[in-house]
Amino acid sequence: MDQPAATTRPAPVNFEVDRESYRHWQVSFDGAIARVAMNVDPEAPLRQGYELKLNSYDLGVDIELADIVRRLRFEHPEVRVVVLTSGSDRVFCAGANINMLGLSSHAWKVNFCKFTNETRCEIEDATDASHQVYLAACNGTTAGGGYELAMACKEIYLQDDGNSAVSLPEVPLLGVLPGTGGLTRLVDKRKVRRDRADVFSTTAEGMRGKKAVDWNLVDAVYPRSKFDEKILERAKNWVEQASGDLAPGERKGVQLPALKPEVEDNVRRYKYVALEIDPSNRTASLTIEGPSAEDVEVVKKGADAMYAAGGELWALRAYRELDDALLQLRVNNLETGLVLVRAKGDAQRVLDHDAALVAAKDQHWFVREVLLHMARVQRRMDNTSRSFFALGDAGTAFAGNLLELALASDRFYLLDDPDNPVKVGLSELNEGGLPMVHGLTRLQTKLIGEVEKVEALVGKRELLDPEDADDAGLVTVLLDDIDWDDDVRIAIEERASLSPDALTGMEQNLRFAGPETPDSKIYARLTAWQNWIFIRPNATGPEGALTLYGRPERPQFDWNRV
Amino acid sequence: MDQPAATTRPAPVNFEVDRESYRHWQVSFDGAIARVAMNVDPEAPLRQGYELKLNSYDLGVDIELADIVRRLRFEHPEVRVVVLTSGSDRVFCAGANINMLGLSSHAWKVNFCKFTNETRCEIEDATDASHQVYLAACNGTTAGGGYELAMACKEIYLQDDGNSAVSLPEVPLLGVLPGTGGLTRLVDKRKVRRDRADVFSTTAEGMRGKKAVDWNLVDAVYPRSKFDEKILERAKNWVEQASGDLAPGERKGVQLPALKPEVEDNVRRYKYVALEIDPSNRTASLTIEGPSAEDVEVVKKGADAMYAAGGELWALRAYRELDDALLQLRVNNLETGLVLVRAKGDAQRVLDHDAALVAAKDQHWFVREVLLHMARVQRRMDNTSRSFFALGDAGTAFAGNLLELALASDRFYLLDDPDNPVKVGLSELNEGGLPMVHGLTRLQTKLIGEVEKVEALVGKRELLDPEDADDAGLVTVLLDDIDWDDDVRIAIEERASLSPDALTGMEQNLRFAGPETPDSKIYARLTAWQNWIFIRPNATGPEGALTLYGRPERPQFDWNRV
Repeated sequence: MDQPAATTRPAPVNFEVDRESYRHWQVSFDGAIARVAMNVDPEAPLRQGYELKLNSYDLGVDIELADIVRRLRFEHPEVRVVVLTSGSDRVFCAGANINMLGLSSHAWKVNFCKFTNETRCEIEDATDASHQVYLAACNGTTAGGGYELAMACKEIYLQDDGNSAVSLPEVPLLGVLPGTGGLTRLVDKRKVRRDRADVFSTTAEGMRGKKAVDWNLVDAVYPRSKFDEKILERAKNWVEQASGDLAPGERKGVQLPALKPEVEDNVRRYKYVALEIDPSNRTASLTIEGPSAEDVEVVKKGADAMYAAGGELWALRAYRELDDALLQLRVNNLETGLVLVRAKGDAQRVLDHDAALVAAKDQHWFVREVLLHMARVQRRMDNTSRSFFALGDAGTAFAGNLLELALASDRFYLLDDPDNPVKVGLSELNEGGLPMVHGLTRLQTKLIGEVEKVEALVGKRELLDPEDADDAGLVTVLLDDIDWDDDVRIAIEERASLSPDALTGMEQNLRFAGPETPDSKIYARLTAWQNWIFIRPNATGPEGALTLYGRPERPQFDWNRV
Repeated sequence: MDQPAATTRPAPVNFEVDRESYRHWQVSFDGAIARVAMNVDPEAPLRQGYELKLNSYDLGVDIELADIVRRLRFEHPEVRVVVLTSGSDRVFCAGANINMLGLSSHAWKVNFCKFTNETRCEIEDATDASHQVYLAACNGTTAGGGYELAMACKEIYLQDDGNSAVSLPEVPLLGVLPGTGGLTRLVDKRKVRRDRADVFSTTAEGMRGKKAVDWNLVDAVYPRSKFDEKILERAKNWVEQASGDLAPGERKGVQLPALKPEVEDNVRRYKYVALEIDPSNRTASLTIEGPSAEDVEVVKKGADAMYAAGGELWALRAYRELDDALLQLRVNNLETGLVLVRAKGDAQRVLDHDAALVAAKDQHWFVREVLLHMARVQRRMDNTSRSFFALGDAGTAFAGNLLELALASDRFYLLDDPDNPVKVGLSELNEGGLPMVHGLTRLQTKLIGEVEKVEALVGKRELLDPEDADDAGLVTVLLDDIDWDDDVRIAIEERASLSPDALTGMEQNLRFAGPETPDSKIYARLTAWQNWIFIRPNATGPEGALTLYGRPERPQFDWNRV
């Protein structure tokens, strides 16, 4: 099988999208209701070798969708309901493009699924946290990833035309899972009975009409003649419901400017963030510059000043840059195994910044959105399958929201230099504002066995000297000036020598101590099984079901159950 | 790489063990304290091609351990503390045998890991539910699976001799995970900080002495000269603590008789259970005979009569047979994809049986053990990667504890014959006595979105006609006599045509709606990642770390992170 993404080095993927140039989506507005219509251009795939027929999608389509979802929150705060529908006449969405999957390397498939999962989680986050309620108006065939997209919405309405059905045909037709949250959302979100979910997920043609409603696969079906009218009715109803508990502040949008990093061979330099790849030892250096004195002044002036700063506000811009850098790492730098994270700046300043930001969070929708965005970027980091070592050497400021980067890292090395102590400190953002996907803070997760240490830290706003930070349980390895260079170098070399697969699996299991949520189950349970299936010959071997899809040959299975 | 287990059909594995003929373990008793010493015979591997050096284990070693753990609960109810130690002088346990893993097929590795995981969960179940507290006395090197075994114990004591260490060297040495619960127990059970867990799991030589205690990797270290004395002291302390809340009844053991099924070519016939393999369509028929009128009489007489019946009590014997049949299916019948489950007998009789059993559960330790055993066997079924269809045709009695088999199945087909209605019914055992691994009942899990249906069923003790059972949400497909044969046949044929890998992944994701527990995380998150890693070239390819372990060549990794 041809695997262009694995064997040749394709052009790097760009995750920044100009909202004026969407190829695959149409966005329109009617007061508090936005309409986002999927209308995939078959001739505009992200990579060559396949056509995006029948409103099927690839990473490029989803990058646009993620951009739309994010911009709706910042640029269109007046929107309360987003109707997700299709611009095509008979197909809502046919799911991920099968030919694209068949042509893709394992790494590409995994990165594609992870990104699309994150977009769907963001749809749910917008619905729950920002009162931008997504409704799926399935005006045609809703298959596979199309139905998974619909399930990310608050409600699903299906056209009742004797033909339009919802379906998850992955198992019967492709020998893989509905891995973009499908199986999990079926039983954990929509709470479809597990035996019905079994029947549904093995019935290629799916279900429609009354049965789809009875089984809670959709919330309602409406005849074609009344579909638009009924959707509008439901949308208006949700506008009312979603307008009750809104954050204050003028509902005029904040534009998200293009990030436009300077890009050289192995360096990507944003305003606050820099990503430097070192191919010689398969590491990257990821540096984020904390807020300046001026940045803090803006935040201290309160919600209106922050709103006026808009897309240039440090907390928004720096985290958008961090988000982009993480995506670059994941998709365009597969060989980078270890990321060395440094937060630069002044620790006290970060705490002052966070205190002012948190104080204003109930005063303006924009401040709330900035915080929700920071939380999402942090979760993207938790879920990035690279080793992260946070390096707290001279000039670093792992405090407040930037301390989260150290807590999200697999290890935190801190320099213990009594002459020039590197300070560490907590803000309210370490205590609940930036939760992990499974609901705990990173502090609670790290110190899950030492509740008394968490309690001792909560509310503490004084900066900690390195030894105190170590005693408090925040540090992995405390090193003095003499040992720093050698010990850190050896740790990096050791890490870079280990099997990347084993590290991915290990980190996934160690990072999320504690409970699980439906979202965390998608990334852990569902995704891990899908990854396994993606490399099994029954799916992707020369005679596997995914490989042979659309061809006349029948797949040949190894029948052994494992 | 040579894969004997995959390419030739090896002799079937026998899971029944004669306690007089353990090859690898020594069991001795001193009042309430049992000593279980691992002393693996290197010359007695289960399969040919490797030696079990350094107290390393294979499936054969673990089958004996599982037998010991089970017999201790039934045959030695006087035991309050089990000291798990080594009969060797310098090695507690070196973990799973690497050469065995290197020689094994993927299916064999997966089945091996699943069984050993279940044994470790049973150790925890004995500790928590039966007050048989396991203490690990690590009198030597405790590596990999050896440390995972120790972590299944309530406490871990390590000999402080300058040499003995605990370690998880899988990631650095083998390129695979500590997949027998290791990573999960590290952060979720022992609640080791995730960054320390990261350091520990990538440090091949492990940790010892004070640091091992400080990091909570072990509970205490004792010098070699005082080790036995200290262990005895701790054990006596636990005997006292574990003697407080014991179930009543004479503490004289109940022997577990050999099951001795009749075995023909494709049939395995026990007293109450029959397993018939149909290789032509890759299905198996699994039939369990419900309690007879005489069986119910015994139970109705109360705890003492049940105790007198001992190993021949229906609820114990039938479930031991079912357990053995499930293990046979898993390990010796890889090509069987679909299991057709029938519970035969009289539904009212099953409910009478369950009512009497539950009424006596606080009256005798033996009754309690019988119920705990039933629960474990049901969980083994939940975790068996085969499709299960429960077939409720004429003569079946899916009621009470046997209804759990239908609720554990992926689908439940029920015959709707008004002339001769097949009854279904609930006992108290459907409402909490036989919980799934994630803590919910199977009823709660199936009807997770319909709490009102669960509430309507709870406490209902009248038998239900098929249509009422269907209305109650218990049935997947209700079929009349005319449709039954064809519809069931088609469903079986369809199921048997699907990719076995996709079905395994799908079922794992649909069966466990709701919360997760550390145990469920082991089977879902950890195991799924390990399965993925087991088939990655970086582990098992010709130049993979697992393949090359012990050879002079260094593994060659594909450095791409996925």
